[in-house]
Amino acid sequence: MILILKPQSEQTKIDLLLEQIENQGVSIHFSKGETETIVGLVGDTTHLDEDWLRANDVVADVRRVSEPYKLANRRFHPEDTKIEVAGRIIGEGHFAMIAGPCSVETEEQIICVANAVKKSGAAFLRGGAFKPRTSPYSFQGLEGEGLRLLKIARRETGLPIVTEIMSENQLDDFADVDIIQVGARNMQNFRLLKELGHSRKPILLKRGLSSTMEELFMSAEYILAGGNPNVILCERGIRTFEKMIRNNLDISAVPIIKAKSHLPVIIDPSHAAGIAWMVEPLAKTAVAAGADGLMIEVHNNPAKALCDGAQSLNPEQFDHLMVDIKRRVAFEEKILEG
Amino acid sequence: MILILKPQSEQTKIDLLLEQIENQGVSIHFSKGETETIVGLVGDTTHLDEDWLRANDVVADVRRVSEPYKLANRRFHPEDTKIEVAGRIIGEGHFAMIAGPCSVETEEQIICVANAVKKSGAAFLRGGAFKPRTSPYSFQGLEGEGLRLLKIARRETGLPIVTEIMSENQLDDFADVDIIQVGARNMQNFRLLKELGHSRKPILLKRGLSSTMEELFMSAEYILAGGNPNVILCERGIRTFEKMIRNNLDISAVPIIKAKSHLPVIIDPSHAAGIAWMVEPLAKTAVAAGADGLMIEVHNNPAKALCDGAQSLNPEQFDHLMVDIKRRVAFEEKILEG
Amino acid sequence: MILILKPQSEQTKIDLLLEQIENQGVSIHFSKGETETIVGLVGDTTHLDEDWLRANDVVADVRRVSEPYKLANRRFHPEDTKIEVAGRIIGEGHFAMIAGPCSVETEEQIICVANAVKKSGAAFLRGGAFKPRTSPYSFQGLEGEGLRLLKIARRETGLPIVTEIMSENQLDDFADVDIIQVGARNMQNFRLLKELGHSRKPILLKRGLSSTMEELFMSAEYILAGGNPNVILCERGIRTFEKMIRNNLDISAVPIIKAKSHLPVIIDPSHAAGIAWMVEPLAKTAVAAGADGLMIEVHNNPAKALCDGAQSLNPEQFDHLMVDIKRRVAFEEKILEG
Amino acid sequence: MILILKPQSEQTKIDLLLEQIENQGVSIHFSKGETETIVGLVGDTTHLDEDWLRANDVVADVRRVSEPYKLANRRFHPEDTKIEVAGRIIGEGHFAMIAGPCSVETEEQIICVANAVKKSGAAFLRGGAFKPRTSPYSFQGLEGEGLRLLKIARRETGLPIVTEIMSENQLDDFADVDIIQVGARNMQNFRLLKELGHSRKPILLKRGLSSTMEELFMSAEYILAGGNPNVILCERGIRTFEKMIRNNLDISAVPIIKAKSHLPVIIDPSHAAGIAWMVEPLAKTAVAAGADGLMIEVHNNPAKALCDGAQSLNPEQFDHLMVDIKRRVAFEEKILEG
Repeated sequence: MILILKPQSEQTKIDLLLEQIENQGVSIHFSKGETETIVGLVGDTTHLDEDWLRANDVVADVRRVSEPYKLANRRFHPEDTKIEVAGRIIGEGHFAMIAGPCSVETEEQIICVANAVKKSGAAFLRGGAFKPRTSPYSFQGLEGEGLRLLKIARRETGLPIVTEIMSENQLDDFADVDIIQVGARNMQNFRLLKELGHSRKPILLKRGLSSTMEELFMSAEYILAGGNPNVILCERGIRTFEKMIRNNLDISAVPIIKAKSHLPVIIDPSHAAGIAWMVEPLAKTAVAAGADGLMIEVHNNPAKALCDGAQSLNPEQFDHLMVDIKRRVAFEEKILEG
Repeated sequence: MILILKPQSEQTKIDLLLEQIENQGVSIHFSKGETETIVGLVGDTTHLDEDWLRANDVVADVRRVSEPYKLANRRFHPEDTKIEVAGRIIGEGHFAMIAGPCSVETEEQIICVANAVKKSGAAFLRGGAFKPRTSPYSFQGLEGEGLRLLKIARRETGLPIVTEIMSENQLDDFADVDIIQVGARNMQNFRLLKELGHSRKPILLKRGLSSTMEELFMSAEYILAGGNPNVILCERGIRTFEKMIRNNLDISAVPIIKAKSHLPVIIDPSHAAGIAWMVEPLAKTAVAAGADGLMIEVHNNPAKALCDGAQSLNPEQFDHLMVDIKRRVAFEEKILEG
Repeated sequence: MILILKPQSEQTKIDLLLEQIENQGVSIHFSKGETETIVGLVGDTTHLDEDWLRANDVVADVRRVSEPYKLANRRFHPEDTKIEVAGRIIGEGHFAMIAGPCSVETEEQIICVANAVKKSGAAFLRGGAFKPRTSPYSFQGLEGEGLRLLKIARRETGLPIVTEIMSENQLDDFADVDIIQVGARNMQNFRLLKELGHSRKPILLKRGLSSTMEELFMSAEYILAGGNPNVILCERGIRTFEKMIRNNLDISAVPIIKAKSHLPVIIDPSHAAGIAWMVEPLAKTAVAAGADGLMIEVHNNPAKALCDGAQSLNPEQFDHLMVDIKRRVAFEEKILEG
Repeated sequence: MILILKPQSEQTKIDLLLEQIENQGVSIHFSKGETETIVGLVGDTTHLDEDWLRANDVVADVRRVSEPYKLANRRFHPEDTKIEVAGRIIGEGHFAMIAGPCSVETEEQIICVANAVKKSGAAFLRGGAFKPRTSPYSFQGLEGEGLRLLKIARRETGLPIVTEIMSENQLDDFADVDIIQVGARNMQNFRLLKELGHSRKPILLKRGLSSTMEELFMSAEYILAGGNPNVILCERGIRTFEKMIRNNLDISAVPIIKAKSHLPVIIDPSHAAGIAWMVEPLAKTAVAAGADGLMIEVHNNPAKALCDGAQSLNPEQFDHLMVDIKRRVAFEEKILEG
């Protein structure tokens, strides 16, 4: 960490500050120049509060040099994390395909979609029971009944289920869910993250619409710091100025996550663009970028879907996509082999 | 609402869609052109789902004409909402000054600050007991103990208290809080918003860092739709590309809220910039823009604050600011009188 | 185009407006509802000015339905545009590799890099002679001498050259350049675009850092409308809130350009991230997304480059990348064949 | 400036780099820690190239401590710059009101508006002769004829004129213009900035739609470094995610410019929101924030304006605004006096 001191600061105030810092076990390197004075803080600065430093009278600015995340940091955990879910593996070269409807609507619908995506090769079934909607007047999901139907579909198909939690109150109801999803709008719901840290469930943590990568890693850190090592990151598009599509897939997230963290990363091309025909090209780039999997919305009748129909594939389109994705995953494996 | 139909769509499919729409009590105006066909949907379209329309095969695009918020909408509620809190009024020309530390730290600290801000003319005491922090390693607030100390400070000074809730689980603990704050990161925590709708507590709803005004109104709508009319909006800076300050105060929010909604609006200049010396100029613009009040961080010793010290004023600075703000509020009243 | 009229507007004012619109050869469809009145304008609305409509007393809002670009629009030009440059083709399935240093520095340097990238399979040589730099104190390019050296490198290697123009004054000096690049900061330098429209040179038009796709198409439209059909679009990263990298490659630009326009699109992964190790993963996604080529910075000694060294590959890294990219291009061709 | 070195870098490489840096007259402070090594560079680092440093093998990151702008920097030029234009002063407490139409359209129109704004108290007449328009099909201004009409209006009213230049080619035509405006889209047209630096004309430099404050200062630095000290900065709204208005006025720009630079700053509330009724509230905040003036669009018949009519005031509205603004300016002067 680096402090830039204000010019003409009183030496007694500077000394007092530096003493307080050294008392926190950090060593100090002092570089006094004509127009500026720089103080390098070397050692474990994770617990040093930037705001506290910045509020000091003599401090002009504070720059963090080392990353504030530790458990999510590849530097301290060089091997890829792999996560086992009901006998399936996510990460470490296993490409995971998660598919299913935005919302669970009826028993018939979820079983129909589950059978279809399984047949095409999906390894996990997604479906929303509790839906975060911008408008209180929009369909909010079947809630508990939705969870019940998801489990029926799992029993029918054997596919592990992925579904979104909206509050730490729901943890008991989600005890039997295979992967718990945290939605983009809850990425910084710190109460929820803390409670998920006390669980051992695999957590699919979606990046917030305007979050930086560091904020995503810090949210993962909340879960990891609670003792739960099973965190899967998910990039689902960021808010930009573009008006033709809902969000823009940030494909840079994949190489950054691979470089800076050891956690697996899933791409959600359905939410990224919000348009069905964009799902395929974006899914292709996810494979090329080295993502660990895809999460794709599939609905048996998108035009009648109760939410997000515009971005859902029908089972035929999904099957067609799966054929292509499998070829691409095989191609990437061949490339890796050299 | 307007539908733009795809060119060369099958007439039978179009007819089917239009019939489904009419069944929802909306009337239809059809404009067929050479290159495009436009369908105007006139009537109450609040419950018509854009995603459902957009997913239809024949629909190229959907444009909402009327606002999707009703209860928060000035069009249907032309008078300003005024909110009574412990005998004080927010809105309708009453300028509310809320002040206090980012975090409650000790009994001595909160009482010291409460006395100071009261003496300078603040009408409400703010203080964080539960703190949403990006890092799990940062100070998370005194939690329940913080609430207890806030109430002691209220008893000492008579100032009603404003403090942040982080989960719908905490509602019982907040029963005795005067104004419940919803933080920027929880603006779309819909579970929390719903529960707050079942309360009658005044809610200070902070705008999310990258939220549009419509999203803010829709979050207010969640609370209003639950039956709680006591919503106060708060603008606290938006995320931009600027690196010199933490966030940029969106002063346009004030005239937009006044035009589109009837709810009062408070400006938080402390969080907007994140720098103490920016608080005063931003506070001045809030008064000129017509805001209904300010929320300002004050700490007896900013350099030792456990969070956000860099943006806190000390009591002397706050007193100086209050003198200026009072003159400005009086000036605006004189202007209004003509 | 759609007009939303203000409620309670005077009928005589409405009639006057509609008459003025009809006089411009556009037909009108009127939908009067209880709370809102919608007017559909059907016909060629390209020349109808939104600002003029919006300023009318009775108009609450204006929504464009059809795209404001015509010559760049795939709807009116369904076949892919292909551009011939010195016997090479860009577009229509020909994958173009453009490589070379950020700046031309010396004769030795540009010939060394040109030979290296040619050997690895690049088809075009890029190199900056005139450099747009944020700081007036940064190296501004060799200017005229840089152009001269580029032409020497072309003579030596046979590679056509791509270099950036900064002003319409330079057109004579660029008469012998094979592809003229318009930089991101000049995407809306309309004087320059107009002059380039009067040329027949292939133009590589880079997207502005915060431009929407529509704005990019409109800038292309300036060149096309002048009579120059040889426009190549280039996505080079957009400004976001991310701090770990310089810009974020907007990979969605490729499918959007392919759907909405007929112009070829090149990806510049070097400027997108601004970091050498990100070039390879981003280049891979460009191939998967269906881009028509790549533009990559290569320097014989990145650590001594006079500009943007941090994002340059050395010749060995570039050669390694080219081997990979060629396999990927071949793979995509096989996929296309079915 | 601070370098963060990569862990486990070869000492010989580090030594070589540090030697090269010292040869540029900068002194070095070395702080070696267990996990990171920090190098403080102290002295005049303005000419040290960040990209060159970042490209070095041993460098993990580069952080600038001192600002890269010198001539625009208040630190090296503590007094406010005041600019004299035709006997009027901008800056140093003189509040400048610039008003007029978006485009000059006819002699009658420009004289009519000029007389009106003069009568209400405007000190400068603005009017566009050359118009940067997103679409090649929109009205592009009267060009040379527009300049001629502006000068007629100046002769009639005595108001100095402000008008936008689009290219360094036009400098001769602008020799007789009082203040040359550089539009937001040309803020980084470095060729143009350089040529304006060789002039002594007052330059009104508008901030780009997504530019940071540092980029604005660096563009001013181009003009100042050329020898022209007469630079006026102009904030005109930044691009955000908001859809209800065109751009969001960044009111924080005023205190930041006042703190970091000595140049005067003008606010353009007309372009910021793009809606006439927002001009007044935003103009009020500009006065409160301490801006040195306002630039406001006024048209004798906004509904017939050839461009940007939606954001223009008519002369009556402008007169009403001026009465209010004058009271506010007087109030601020009284406050300053104490």
